Amino acid sequence: MGLIVQKFGGSSVANTEKLEMVGGHIRKEVENGNQVVVVVSAQGKTTDRLIAEESEITKNPVKREHDVLVSTGEQITISKLAILLNKMGQKAVSLTGWQVPIVTNSEHTNSRIRYIDNHKIHEYLSAGNVVIVAGFQGIDENGDITTLGRGGSDTTAVALAANLKADRCDIFTDVDGVYSSDPRMVENVMKLDTISYDEMLELSSMGAKVLHNRCVEIGKKYGVPIYVKSTFEKDSIGTLVADKEPFEDLVISGVTKDDYISRITVVGLENKIGRTYQLFKLLAENLINVDVIVQSFGEHITKDIAFTVKMNDLGKTLEILEENKESLKIEQVLHCENLSKVSIIGLGIANKPGVASDMFEALYENNINMHMISTSEIKISVLVNSNEADMAVRAIHGKFFGK
Amino acid sequence: MGLIVQKFGGSSVANTEKLEMVGGHIRKEVENGNQVVVVVSAQGKTTDRLIAEESEITKNPVKREHDVLVSTGEQITISKLAILLNKMGQKAVSLTGWQVPIVTNSEHTNSRIRYIDNHKIHEYLSAGNVVIVAGFQGIDENGDITTLGRGGSDTTAVALAANLKADRCDIFTDVDGVYSSDPRMVENVMKLDTISYDEMLELSSMGAKVLHNRCVEIGKKYGVPIYVKSTFEKDSIGTLVADKEPFEDLVISGVTKDDYISRITVVGLENKIGRTYQLFKLLAENLINVDVIVQSFGEHITKDIAFTVKMNDLGKTLEILEENKESLKIEQVLHCENLSKVSIIGLGIANKPGVASDMFEALYENNINMHMISTSEIKISVLVNSNEADMAVRAIHGKFFGK
Repeated sequence: MGLIVQKFGGSSVANTEKLEMVGGHIRKEVENGNQVVVVVSAQGKTTDRLIAEESEITKNPVKREHDVLVSTGEQITISKLAILLNKMGQKAVSLTGWQVPIVTNSEHTNSRIRYIDNHKIHEYLSAGNVVIVAGFQGIDENGDITTLGRGGSDTTAVALAANLKADRCDIFTDVDGVYSSDPRMVENVMKLDTISYDEMLELSSMGAKVLHNRCVEIGKKYGVPIYVKSTFEKDSIGTLVADKEPFEDLVISGVTKDDYISRITVVGLENKIGRTYQLFKLLAENLINVDVIVQSFGEHITKDIAFTVKMNDLGKTLEILEENKESLKIEQVLHCENLSKVSIIGLGIANKPGVASDMFEALYENNINMHMISTSEIKISVLVNSNEADMAVRAIHGKFFGK
Repeated sequence: MGLIVQKFGGSSVANTEKLEMVGGHIRKEVENGNQVVVVVSAQGKTTDRLIAEESEITKNPVKREHDVLVSTGEQITISKLAILLNKMGQKAVSLTGWQVPIVTNSEHTNSRIRYIDNHKIHEYLSAGNVVIVAGFQGIDENGDITTLGRGGSDTTAVALAANLKADRCDIFTDVDGVYSSDPRMVENVMKLDTISYDEMLELSSMGAKVLHNRCVEIGKKYGVPIYVKSTFEKDSIGTLVADKEPFEDLVISGVTKDDYISRITVVGLENKIGRTYQLFKLLAENLINVDVIVQSFGEHITKDIAFTVKMNDLGKTLEILEENKESLKIEQVLHCENLSKVSIIGLGIANKPGVASDMFEALYENNINMHMISTSEIKISVLVNSNEADMAVRAIHGKFFGK
């Protein structure tokens, strides 16, 4: 007898009909002789609706109370699903975050899980129940309701799987796995059978909205095999996210694109210890998220630093730099708008020579200019003009996966 | 400095605009130097909507899960109201039933309060907060969410007032107090300044939907002064429900009417100990609610018993009696449909002779026939034909309160 954690997102539980499909997936695992713990999100647009109602009162709610409000969404789903399963003849109980309990720190709207007490879950499982846990929510040590922030239900599912030492964690969603690129952009995308945690981390932080980073990190740390599957296909095999040997198959796992990026170049920053720190600390204090940073300098008195921020942070960033030009001892600030970051991801990158040059060749053949390059062990990113980005993705995908 | 419990029902918190009116009532008490505990219901039709969604799945949900579902309604209201008060500059925190905690027995959908732990409430009050508690809900000793059934939020409010030894409990609703009769039926109804717990109990169990019986019972037991007030009138004085001396003012407090009643007469029941018990046990086992029971017999071998049931229980009742005619040794069953029960309620009834005859006189003057009479210390009820019931109420009201 195994123990499986299944997670169903908002679109998978949006209405009664869809809940019945979910019921089918659960029953199948029970019939396979497994114990099943289910994690669900709020139904469809429920959370959006609650937040819209809240913003009628204020755009700036007390965070403690915001968590009390939005956590009702998942509570509605767990009870409905438990009612459905019992009607189907399958014993089931629901548990809210505080009932499990899933204990978090007190950072409302963006809490981290501290520990999970699984006694109650095991008790209910032993009594023959499917246990349905509300995703996204927890309780802090003060007894207050907390929520986990973006990707919260995925995080709940994988954390529970780790804590319960589950055989696997199935993340059901509206796609049937992880693809080599965005099918809306690239023809002949390839569904990946497996992908490593590290590759998935790079993919999920870069716009492939399949799994949230936090859950992949937990999966990696505790070695939880995560399957990404489709709720709506009957026998979806999906993609397995797990530890993987780097050489085995593909050089790269995927090509991704991230839009609305601007590049800022700080020219002539005083080349003195602490100046760079001072610069980025200032941006961090103003809650500006800096992505890629590239620095090049030799033995000069000044250095140049280029970095990227989201387009909607550009104005504020330029303002801050202008205001602090003197204290930071900057000569000049340049910027470039409407860029996209195109990246390839793969464990093979570090070990296969020529991957970067293959990527650059694909761009060269299509006459696409690169505004910045940055590389890591398993990723190469380039900045290109946004109007050439889709072409860039297609060209690179064709180069590595065949047309 | 006093401690006030305020309760606002579903129509008083239905939308943001109404929540702001509620905020005004709360702020007024704070400005008067009081500590304030607020109890709220689910907004407007929220509970109805949740139950409609649930019935898409099944009409017969597991009760444990039903409570998890419907309790989200009040949780939404408490968080929104806390967000609003904080925005107004008034510190406020919300508490769900389990957070207080309000500990109940485990009878889901109809739980009774066992005890309330008020440490957390006092802590938050001492720190200058308005404390907003979700009505209608609690937690059982197993850590499961429970709900209190009909009138649950009123019960929460008065129970909290009793537990906190509050100076008073204000029940805000959409009427500005308790009236001598239904204004839709009778002109010149009188708003009562005060009414005793016992009178209110009779009134609320008989269709005057202002306060639920359970909260009045708790109020009586612990001597909580309860004010029924209007949310929508600025300086509503309302009606005080409290201990009252019987002689002081009015002979009667109100005239009420209850429709859709049928009378069943069991003729020739064997006059033997246990037969009556057997009869009503049989009805109770079939979940038939019997209201008035009148029995008259002398030294005969048989006796006659008449009782009333709701019209929609009539068919089933007649069927049961027919099936058990032999075992119960009944000669004949008669019935009479489309009746209404008209009652007068007042502490004065027991101590003022002639109240009953005044009531009967009013009916006689209007040529209204009575099908049954029953009396208690503080109530006299008669059954009349439903098409004459409104006229009966007006005639009796006129007799006691003046035209």
